[in-house]
Amino acid sequence: MKRIALLGSTGSIGTQTLDVVAQHPEYFEIEAMAAGRNIELLLQQVQQFRPKLVSVQDKAAADAIRIHLPAGTALTYGDEGLIEVASCADADTVVTAVMGSIGLKSTLAAIEQGKQIGLANKETLVTAGHLVTAAARKHNVALLPIDSEHSAIFQCLNGESMRHLRSITLTASGGSFRDKGREELKDVTVEQALNHPNWSMGAKITIDSATMANKGLEVIEAHWLFDIPYEQIQVLIHPESIIHSFVEYVDGSVIAQLGLPDMRVPIQYALTYPERIEMKGPSLSLAEIGKLHFREMDMARYPMVRYAYESGQAGGTATTVFNAANEVAVSRFLKGEIGFLDIERIVEKVLSNHQVIADPSLAEIEDADGRARAVAASLPPVE
Amino acid sequence: MKRIALLGSTGSIGTQTLDVVAQHPEYFEIEAMAAGRNIELLLQQVQQFRPKLVSVQDKAAADAIRIHLPAGTALTYGDEGLIEVASCADADTVVTAVMGSIGLKSTLAAIEQGKQIGLANKETLVTAGHLVTAAARKHNVALLPIDSEHSAIFQCLNGESMRHLRSITLTASGGSFRDKGREELKDVTVEQALNHPNWSMGAKITIDSATMANKGLEVIEAHWLFDIPYEQIQVLIHPESIIHSFVEYVDGSVIAQLGLPDMRVPIQYALTYPERIEMKGPSLSLAEIGKLHFREMDMARYPMVRYAYESGQAGGTATTVFNAANEVAVSRFLKGEIGFLDIERIVEKVLSNHQVIADPSLAEIEDADGRARAVAASLPPVE
Repeated sequence: MKRIALLGSTGSIGTQTLDVVAQHPEYFEIEAMAAGRNIELLLQQVQQFRPKLVSVQDKAAADAIRIHLPAGTALTYGDEGLIEVASCADADTVVTAVMGSIGLKSTLAAIEQGKQIGLANKETLVTAGHLVTAAARKHNVALLPIDSEHSAIFQCLNGESMRHLRSITLTASGGSFRDKGREELKDVTVEQALNHPNWSMGAKITIDSATMANKGLEVIEAHWLFDIPYEQIQVLIHPESIIHSFVEYVDGSVIAQLGLPDMRVPIQYALTYPERIEMKGPSLSLAEIGKLHFREMDMARYPMVRYAYESGQAGGTATTVFNAANEVAVSRFLKGEIGFLDIERIVEKVLSNHQVIADPSLAEIEDADGRARAVAASLPPVE
Repeated sequence: MKRIALLGSTGSIGTQTLDVVAQHPEYFEIEAMAAGRNIELLLQQVQQFRPKLVSVQDKAAADAIRIHLPAGTALTYGDEGLIEVASCADADTVVTAVMGSIGLKSTLAAIEQGKQIGLANKETLVTAGHLVTAAARKHNVALLPIDSEHSAIFQCLNGESMRHLRSITLTASGGSFRDKGREELKDVTVEQALNHPNWSMGAKITIDSATMANKGLEVIEAHWLFDIPYEQIQVLIHPESIIHSFVEYVDGSVIAQLGLPDMRVPIQYALTYPERIEMKGPSLSLAEIGKLHFREMDMARYPMVRYAYESGQAGGTATTVFNAANEVAVSRFLKGEIGFLDIERIVEKVLSNHQVIADPSLAEIEDADGRARAVAASLPPVE
């Protein structure tokens, strides 16, 4: 029986995690959960899964939910509440499915408590990869990836030795605008950007997929998760998203993980590893799909991937700043404040103004993060 | 250091095995080798690899080669010679790359001597899978597949549990006539049949690839090698032969092995397992390939695959007979005695006349094999 604390229960990964849990009550139990402001959905989840502890975003949300909670479910809120849920004594596994860099402190708290981590919050490693991986090693905690690409790589490494690795390749669908040239991107709308061809995901990650910032974040995440130099991490455009990623070994043999686009597979794998359990649903039929397509990653078409590699190679606070500037820029785009191409202009501008601090402390990371956000919020759109 | 006895050194797999050995003299040494009648090539190989023991097909070949052998290389010949090479005291690994069912006795001899087996002779398992796998279990010997499809499956199973397996899928290029309908197959020539689109292989296996008997033999081989029921073994047409085969797990996750068509990769893997060592050559570039295609296996178009499944499910001597009839029919086709479609007519006829013996002894297998060959040799062509 896996006892799970779930951070971000009402988001896309959160609800799918609960779907996996509901399908296998004999394997999984929800001990605690944290959500933001989606009180209505959270209450339904609490009724169904009966956690011992629930946390919401702030006092207002806590006050709104308090009287509706069943007996036996304690309530907390805010950043402290998130850490409480992550440290929940009864959980052995914490799924970090909160969005953005707020996942960092709670993930570190969970690692310090010796919890296994089901890692869906990629900003944690992007923002403070050296601190998180060091803490995981120190507390002998496994960081189990939930992202479909990293889960794929993780599965392809099963039973293999990292000594034999030649490279890893993350596949990328190309996002909602993969068939548009850069000229056509100037005037795309928020609605168009939110229309992802393969995966149904949250708004932030769907925009990140359109700009490929998401793939850039995944490259940085892979660097930390698998302890691989950036030179050995490649990105390949694969519109169908059927090959989720692959690994090449020194003998030229390539091992790939494939599947229908269904986040419940990597979620469940992170929860059952090294075991696998039944997942209901259709099997992948390559005959039915008929064709798979591949093309080179084009760094000129997708400069966000280049910024990610560059900040990854710069190291230190550079990736924190890449992520922070991108979060703010995407949020401004979603609010209609800036155009689509302004997202990458803002990220480039913030990065080029940043003085990298090597091997930063948590305080230095938070400081760099805050400054990058402030600059990203203040930059005017070009169009 | 792996000390290798190589059965079938002058064939396609044999020469590529020696290529692998030559590239890594620090890992591999050839202790003994057996060939058929290609004396000239064998002598070159002996000069290069200086084995302690060499066997040739018959006394005539032995007499022709004797005076050319270097000091320190002993000579033997015939079926007994093959067994001597397979049992060679100084070898820890035997690569069985001889063609057809003559590989069986020597493979059994090697297993009884506790040698690891690099299995390229699929007829061994097809003809006497129950005896060979029982012997391997008894003597705690690993059967390491050299066929690209089985090596792929073997690699995809790394670090995984057979309990979690949903199915395996062998990919098939479709052979030299994959774009021809059955009507067009009546008058194809030996030359056309020998022109395989992806792999450069021996004549017998190239014809087997055109009829798909090869895929049928692989299905039976997979059944024995991985101890999987026929219902869980699938075949998928994949013209590019880039995905060499794949495995589906109970959670819907698919692990595939990919690579450029190069038999040296599975050969080397069988020799280094569970390690991997460097293989020179270009990396697989999916971007360069651009597209991969897949379509359903069509049992009406490729009846040999159906016969393979049927004889596999019938069990006992049925697969021995399937293989023996096919060997004779292919040999007759290569000699120009019969037409291309006669190959499958002969196999069907021989199979339908055979009374299956369940759990046969080696003598019963040899008897069934011999009878099937006699019938297959005597049947007149239809056209």
